[in-house]
Amino acid sequence: MNSTFPIRTLLRRPWTAVPKITLTRGLHQSSTMSEKLKPAARVSGNRQDVWSIINEAAAASPKQPIINMGQGFFGYNPPDFILDAAKQALDQVECNQYSPTKGRPRLKKAISDAYAPFWGRNLDPETEITITTGANEGMLSAFMAFIEPGDEVIIFEPFFDQYISNIEMPGGKIVYVPLHPPKEGAVKTLSAGEWTIDFDELERAITPKTKMLVINTPQNPVGKVFSRDELQRIADLCLKHKIIILSDEVYDRLYYVPFTRIATLSPEVEQITLTVGSAGKNFYATGWRVGWLMGPPHLIQYVSAAHTRICYSSVSPLQEACAIGFEQAAGHDFWTTAVSDMRGKLARFNAVWDELGVPYSEPEGGYFVMVNLSAVRIPEGYPFPPHVAGRPRDFQLAWFLIQELGVAAIPPSEFFTDANAHIVEDYVRFAVCKPDEVLEDAKERLRGLRRFLKKAGE
Amino acid sequence: MNSTFPIRTLLRRPWTAVPKITLTRGLHQSSTMSEKLKPAARVSGNRQDVWSIINEAAAASPKQPIINMGQGFFGYNPPDFILDAAKQALDQVECNQYSPTKGRPRLKKAISDAYAPFWGRNLDPETEITITTGANEGMLSAFMAFIEPGDEVIIFEPFFDQYISNIEMPGGKIVYVPLHPPKEGAVKTLSAGEWTIDFDELERAITPKTKMLVINTPQNPVGKVFSRDELQRIADLCLKHKIIILSDEVYDRLYYVPFTRIATLSPEVEQITLTVGSAGKNFYATGWRVGWLMGPPHLIQYVSAAHTRICYSSVSPLQEACAIGFEQAAGHDFWTTAVSDMRGKLARFNAVWDELGVPYSEPEGGYFVMVNLSAVRIPEGYPFPPHVAGRPRDFQLAWFLIQELGVAAIPPSEFFTDANAHIVEDYVRFAVCKPDEVLEDAKERLRGLRRFLKKAGE
Repeated sequence: MNSTFPIRTLLRRPWTAVPKITLTRGLHQSSTMSEKLKPAARVSGNRQDVWSIINEAAAASPKQPIINMGQGFFGYNPPDFILDAAKQALDQVECNQYSPTKGRPRLKKAISDAYAPFWGRNLDPETEITITTGANEGMLSAFMAFIEPGDEVIIFEPFFDQYISNIEMPGGKIVYVPLHPPKEGAVKTLSAGEWTIDFDELERAITPKTKMLVINTPQNPVGKVFSRDELQRIADLCLKHKIIILSDEVYDRLYYVPFTRIATLSPEVEQITLTVGSAGKNFYATGWRVGWLMGPPHLIQYVSAAHTRICYSSVSPLQEACAIGFEQAAGHDFWTTAVSDMRGKLARFNAVWDELGVPYSEPEGGYFVMVNLSAVRIPEGYPFPPHVAGRPRDFQLAWFLIQELGVAAIPPSEFFTDANAHIVEDYVRFAVCKPDEVLEDAKERLRGLRRFLKKAGE
Repeated sequence: MNSTFPIRTLLRRPWTAVPKITLTRGLHQSSTMSEKLKPAARVSGNRQDVWSIINEAAAASPKQPIINMGQGFFGYNPPDFILDAAKQALDQVECNQYSPTKGRPRLKKAISDAYAPFWGRNLDPETEITITTGANEGMLSAFMAFIEPGDEVIIFEPFFDQYISNIEMPGGKIVYVPLHPPKEGAVKTLSAGEWTIDFDELERAITPKTKMLVINTPQNPVGKVFSRDELQRIADLCLKHKIIILSDEVYDRLYYVPFTRIATLSPEVEQITLTVGSAGKNFYATGWRVGWLMGPPHLIQYVSAAHTRICYSSVSPLQEACAIGFEQAAGHDFWTTAVSDMRGKLARFNAVWDELGVPYSEPEGGYFVMVNLSAVRIPEGYPFPPHVAGRPRDFQLAWFLIQELGVAAIPPSEFFTDANAHIVEDYVRFAVCKPDEVLEDAKERLRGLRRFLKKAGE
């Protein structure tokens, strides 16, 4: 069962869950040995992270096996035409050896062709596209390429948590601007598009040190697709203040309302924009680690340079498979099927919230749903462990769902600063990229929430 | 033909070959725009690197197709049992999704078993082994884990060039200690083991800021396997000064003299040592990007933490294939065949130098040969482009070989500081991990060198 918790293989983020160093002392080791072997500050944080908390909760739950709707990996395989392409690539000598550092030519060409309809032209595969080891290392490469210590980067809350370490590694300072949920989010289901930017707040966050601004659309975890108007206002600010836009568009093939790519707003905006894509998200293969950045040559060349220093080159046979994936996707009607399949999963799963009268943000894109559980009454004196009791209510809600119902979801306050965590303390994030039978099983369990719901007006 | 130059796909290292920024100016772009978009210092170097120089030489040569013995990628495939394992992994949902950040459990277990004979015990797969995106990103993770700005790292020259950027990224200062070639290297073929460390020089390089020391054995490009005695002296210095040893052992299955792993010298040495391995080198698949580090938990945990911040996780299906590779290698007699095959290739190729009376360093391990071409007389006034004319003689030798004979090799002074580049100005490095027929073709071409050789006593 792919969406149950594989406990041994669950992801941990050890940098936020590092125990005290217990150095075995040998004959030659003086008391200063552990001092000399100590790690750099960048890896020695110690707050327990959301993934290990949820993992522990899953292991401790009486409701085994747990249904894992926490992390956004797919519970099914890439389509056969892409798997077949990967297998064929494995038979070719050159596909098993180093890829060029900027990526295999066939993949860059395929991406250029696949995105031409959106850009209105073919991006130059040699100078405007570079392949990275997943979108994650692609974003790190972008920050490594442009951030000097002390430079500021604006990100919206909630954020994808890897942004934080990726910005901090080159010495960047993060400036947070929250997305605001709809005021009525606790009482009625509204579009995820109702999460809004306060543009005065955004402009006040800009300083002379602001070097980059990150957007994520379709947005994880909110499910919002930034509107053309919102993107234009963001772009105008970035043009005015000469800020590089890093647009994380890894869910770019899963949108259910009109989707605008910020780089395509105008030639001027394109000149300051790096767009991030992910084969893992596009082709249901989060373990393949193939991503890319698109942008003008004067930005892309430095992203390539940074990527080369970080990973040297990216996985070669799976790049070839992704190239063939892009070449053949339209012929297999893959993109439209992907949208209709995922919309179907969202509708299937969210039906349980409608049944229960529990409101959620209706996703405009991607595969996450933010559900508002303010109506859930956790019994008084419920036994939370201290590291959960000390976190916002969403951590307690997630723990409670795992213990009582055996369904794992993610508390989104992990993706906020402490100051703004209260904004989402009643929300929990579910990933629906799972087989339909898993979704049905989850729904059946979630119906058990009914006995914990406050009555209307209570 | 895999060992001819695929010009379009040849690796470039753009960070040392960055052209002037040519920023297209848009309507809103003021004269300060390019200033605001400028890259970080870490990616804006401008010396042309060896790979692009050799690439240009290959493109400009009249001797097409060029035989590429420059870069160390294999000219043949991984064995079928490993390719089959990769194809089977692609059919499993969990193998196509995120790997745990520290690596797939099956691979860590397989590595633990595979290295148990050398360590005399099973390393703990959970705490003493971590999987990385190739050895390259593994080494970066180690530096990111332990280097604070200003910390010093000792490396031996010649070095693998990625070390430089990997150490500089977290702000490390590199301290270089040269290996010294045998005095008679220009006149007779001697063992690569005759390249030696001056231990006084090494000890003088140590300061209170020395945090790490990197060794590479079997060594690229020299082909030296550090002797047990040399390793013990290095280890004693590191224990005395409390320095972390990072032992790059990516060629660890290809040795032709007794090979000692420094971590296994004593429990005390093991406590300060990180050992780096590479499935790409072990299994003839440099494009797979699967590597690992082994070491004590108090070091490995921070390498894992850094890796998670850099790449999040590594390529999942190919990790599974490598696990099966380790599990089945002995049954297929793979390790012994690998050694005898590569020794055969070395003997086959080096026969041409014996024929020509040209001396080389007889490799003790790995698949590179350093050939001493001091006897080659380059015709006076030979037309080198300025960027080659301005580099040490080994660059000119490499250019000359490509133009006159159509065989590409690497000038090793690229792997030295300018101050010590003269040490190898008569050497050129050849990679023999190519099909036998390619080696024979190369030899036939290299026989053409005879007319450029000085006579003995000349």
